[in-house]
Amino acid sequence: MNILDLVVGKPIKTSDERAEQIGPVQGIPIFGLDGLSSAAYGPEAALSLLIPLGLLGVRYIVPISAAIITLLVIVYFSYRQTIAAYPSGGGSYTVARFNLGAPAGLLAAAALLADYILTAAVGISAGVGALVSAVPSLLPHMVSLCVGILIVITILNLRGVREAGTVFAVPTYLFVGALLITIVTGVLRVLLSGGHLTPAVPLPFPPPMTEAVSYWLLLKVFASGCTALTGVEAVSNGVKAFREPTVKNAQRTLTVIIFLLAVLLAGISYLVKIYGIAATHPGQPGYQSVLSMLTAAVFGKGVFYYLTIGTILVVLSLSANTAFADFPRLCRAIAQNNYLPHVFVYRGRRLVYTYGIVVLAVLCGGLLVLFGGVTDRLIPLYAVGAFLAFTLSQAGMVMHWRKNRGPHWLKSALVNGLGALVTGITTVVVLVAKFVEGAWITLLFIPLTIVFFALVRRHYHSVKLLTTCKVPVDAAGLSQHPIAVIAIDRWSAVTRQGIEFAARLSPEVISLHVEPNEHEHSDLLQDDWEHYVEQPFRSAGKEPPQLHVLPSPYRFVIIPVVQFILELSKRNPARSIVVVIPELVEDRWYEYFLHDQRGRLLEWVLLARGNERIFTVSAPWYIGKRT
Amino acid sequence: MNILDLVVGKPIKTSDERAEQIGPVQGIPIFGLDGLSSAAYGPEAALSLLIPLGLLGVRYIVPISAAIITLLVIVYFSYRQTIAAYPSGGGSYTVARFNLGAPAGLLAAAALLADYILTAAVGISAGVGALVSAVPSLLPHMVSLCVGILIVITILNLRGVREAGTVFAVPTYLFVGALLITIVTGVLRVLLSGGHLTPAVPLPFPPPMTEAVSYWLLLKVFASGCTALTGVEAVSNGVKAFREPTVKNAQRTLTVIIFLLAVLLAGISYLVKIYGIAATHPGQPGYQSVLSMLTAAVFGKGVFYYLTIGTILVVLSLSANTAFADFPRLCRAIAQNNYLPHVFVYRGRRLVYTYGIVVLAVLCGGLLVLFGGVTDRLIPLYAVGAFLAFTLSQAGMVMHWRKNRGPHWLKSALVNGLGALVTGITTVVVLVAKFVEGAWITLLFIPLTIVFFALVRRHYHSVKLLTTCKVPVDAAGLSQHPIAVIAIDRWSAVTRQGIEFAARLSPEVISLHVEPNEHEHSDLLQDDWEHYVEQPFRSAGKEPPQLHVLPSPYRFVIIPVVQFILELSKRNPARSIVVVIPELVEDRWYEYFLHDQRGRLLEWVLLARGNERIFTVSAPWYIGKRT
Repeated sequence: MNILDLVVGKPIKTSDERAEQIGPVQGIPIFGLDGLSSAAYGPEAALSLLIPLGLLGVRYIVPISAAIITLLVIVYFSYRQTIAAYPSGGGSYTVARFNLGAPAGLLAAAALLADYILTAAVGISAGVGALVSAVPSLLPHMVSLCVGILIVITILNLRGVREAGTVFAVPTYLFVGALLITIVTGVLRVLLSGGHLTPAVPLPFPPPMTEAVSYWLLLKVFASGCTALTGVEAVSNGVKAFREPTVKNAQRTLTVIIFLLAVLLAGISYLVKIYGIAATHPGQPGYQSVLSMLTAAVFGKGVFYYLTIGTILVVLSLSANTAFADFPRLCRAIAQNNYLPHVFVYRGRRLVYTYGIVVLAVLCGGLLVLFGGVTDRLIPLYAVGAFLAFTLSQAGMVMHWRKNRGPHWLKSALVNGLGALVTGITTVVVLVAKFVEGAWITLLFIPLTIVFFALVRRHYHSVKLLTTCKVPVDAAGLSQHPIAVIAIDRWSAVTRQGIEFAARLSPEVISLHVEPNEHEHSDLLQDDWEHYVEQPFRSAGKEPPQLHVLPSPYRFVIIPVVQFILELSKRNPARSIVVVIPELVEDRWYEYFLHDQRGRLLEWVLLARGNERIFTVSAPWYIGKRT
Repeated sequence: MNILDLVVGKPIKTSDERAEQIGPVQGIPIFGLDGLSSAAYGPEAALSLLIPLGLLGVRYIVPISAAIITLLVIVYFSYRQTIAAYPSGGGSYTVARFNLGAPAGLLAAAALLADYILTAAVGISAGVGALVSAVPSLLPHMVSLCVGILIVITILNLRGVREAGTVFAVPTYLFVGALLITIVTGVLRVLLSGGHLTPAVPLPFPPPMTEAVSYWLLLKVFASGCTALTGVEAVSNGVKAFREPTVKNAQRTLTVIIFLLAVLLAGISYLVKIYGIAATHPGQPGYQSVLSMLTAAVFGKGVFYYLTIGTILVVLSLSANTAFADFPRLCRAIAQNNYLPHVFVYRGRRLVYTYGIVVLAVLCGGLLVLFGGVTDRLIPLYAVGAFLAFTLSQAGMVMHWRKNRGPHWLKSALVNGLGALVTGITTVVVLVAKFVEGAWITLLFIPLTIVFFALVRRHYHSVKLLTTCKVPVDAAGLSQHPIAVIAIDRWSAVTRQGIEFAARLSPEVISLHVEPNEHEHSDLLQDDWEHYVEQPFRSAGKEPPQLHVLPSPYRFVIIPVVQFILELSKRNPARSIVVVIPELVEDRWYEYFLHDQRGRLLEWVLLARGNERIFTVSAPWYIGKRT
């Protein structure tokens, strides 16, 4: 227990939940890391697709960013309303399920689960990728680095929401601060320079124009840039994590996250255009990320440059944390409706949903190891799920307002309706633009997950039907005692204890002894039996237990015992049978290797092949004698 | 069961053991593969060390081979005697233990175990190494090939002695036949050529002489060539595998193996000298094995050449089989004296010692994977163990004859004494010559293994002392019934069955319900309890079971139950407690993931932390209802 206390922390009482709840200061790093870190890769993703347009492409970044920011603001307002309407957690699953019906809810749930798993894996691998491109000597250790970061994030999340928020606060605020300083300084320089701006460090020459502008290209650029929006729904899913006033705190957190993200996106795209920074091809010599070039252009490659790049690395790899905050909450909501195993509902020692965290860690770790830490190919897969969930959630909110017609319901419905329309269109654009590159995998994964949900629910339903009981206990018919059966090997203290216990449970005890080598031991046992068991029973005036020697021509031990018991049960269809299994309990775990585990095996086979009138009893005999 | 039948074969009755026993025809491949295959690497190992002497070195091979063959004959006669004296299996362990005392026996046992593990790994990797040098495109698959061969050998051995003997007979006899034909043809050519012999294919030019002859070098060559003797003790260890007349059959098998080996060694070294074949450096361009050059010199590179090389490859990789035949038998003998876990004594469905075979396969597979299939570095480690065991076994036999002074005891003692002396000297030579190259690892492994033996025996001894029981059953004191405790979740058919069973075991039933969320379910349960349990008990005129609701501020379920039971046991030091654990048994294994396994966990924690008055009962409730 002490190791667990050390790693995960001491258990927290359910009644101390309040103290574990968070305010905006911790809420921003926990639920905002994913959203804010997308400032680092959203513009880069858009600019990469603009490379073929050369310097002309750089000019398009401003209108495209404006469109993305507009979408962001629309989504912001509709989620703000969702939080107010669903103060106990209004993730897309809940909202769609309540307002559009179970199928829509499951569709949103499956899409979001896919998205969270991908976000976690891609976030970590992107961070490690950036680190490795800065320190190439780490290249052989990519997988280890990914798994190491994954373990740290997992443990921090298992330690509880508040602690994770506190730890992640430092890198998050450093990252935002560094980028804001860069942007403000850059903009001031532009204003002061009067149009004749020179970068502090020479920039790479923009690539030549190799392609003409087309609507399709611009649409793809927009879809790519939209990855910046993933993570926006995080807050609405985790409203319950906030302290009172819950709704206000959650809304404040969302406002700050969206405001910061919008400023960062606007500032970066403005400066990129002014400095004429074109993206470079990743994986090719001379590659530099857009933010690296931008920071260098504003400040030169000094201490501040390295500080900024450092925080970008850290924030990218920690952006997986948002998935860790939301995935378990989503699983819990789904499990509460019987679509996932019930273990996802249990809250662990630190009041977090342990199973959800562990399952996400395992799935994410599996993806990272499978792809050797390079999950770039997964990036196209993962905006689809988020936008599908956005759309369903917004559409659900429109229905919500229609049903509960409040004073300003039409205004609210219009805001969410606009959100649904825009995110719906974006979903189609993203899907079409990325279909060939991998979005089809997500499209395949989602229905399979929904089928899984349905099967789980069907199983729970049938178990519930079968175990529901409207019959009271048959207290009158309890007089008949069970038949006690005990498997013995030789006369020993273990056997003696077992027989005494069996005789206490029933006056009718049958002892079984399996004899693989004809007559080798059984004569010896017979003598002991006579002396140590039969005589004392007779002198106490009781019927002694019977001793059955079972032959075993094939040297099996378990099979003859199980066959005897099943036969006995068949011949006595009204009786129950208690099988007493004497077990030697070792002092130290490694001592288990020195004794066969036939008792355990017998128990297991009886459980698998027996019936509900056969009960197995472990009669432990402790080597280090206890009382 | 059917898959097992298919892979390993149908179970064999203990009484059908006779039919499984073997004669010399199967005995030679089973126990002789290791010895005979050493004709392929013994001369090569000696000649490799003679490379620095150039053509002069080739001349030394004849006297050195003569010395090795003399040693072989001495060892043969002494093992022949050992077989007669120990017809139930006279491995070095048994002989040394009986005649020189337990420490000497354990020394021999540890040395032999080390040797068998190494033999198996080195045999397989040498075979695969030869195969890969013939077909270089297989190079990336070395580990897979090694593991594949290991699996085949393991399964064949699990299928029983007789089947292994039948399968391995073909390659063994092909190998011996091909080499004998080569030797006879070669010798005939020498006799017919009248001294002017030209090889059928031009041979590589012998290397220049770069070193002077020294006694130390010749000693090392002798020690290296002595690897040809490993595997000679195999027959004496497995006497019991032979059919009646057991001793005669075992002796005949040994005679044929030794005779064939001696002829092969003599013939190879004679022809090597006549043709002037010097070894080439393995791993360098132009490398060819000595047997490859010899066969090519006699027959040219035709069909027969490739057939011979093919059988050499197969026999080398199958030479591991001798270790598989002997290691389990040795483990069984050691386990019978309580120095190893008793599972090594059990004979599986095909009358072989399953655990020994599996443990050897795992250890050998571990070595192969660890060394990537290249275990050349292990070769120096492994003759030491064999010769140490030889020496102890021969010395033991001397004592044996002295104790049982038969008519010709002095002659027998002299034969074994000579064997002991010569193998003793050889052990020292091998140890000194190979110490730096790795023999020190064996020297480290042996005492560690002996310490392990001692610890295992001490444990068994203390368990035996503790469980030995001279007290009869206390039949008079059995009147007091146990206290039945049942952990319940909600009212259901599973709960009902459990309570009925608990009430059958004892009139004193305590039900425990853990309530992590204050008052959330327990009110509901209380109503059901009143209705379905208390009322029927009261109307039957019985005391109803008590219902205890245990609070769980930390949401633990197992811990409060265990604490309650331990406390109950403390307060009732004379009573035993039966804990009834209702368990839902699923129809399909994967359904287990959908239900928590808290019942199992509770059982396990009670076993680990409980005492011998606390018994746990699994009360299974089957989803697919059975009778």
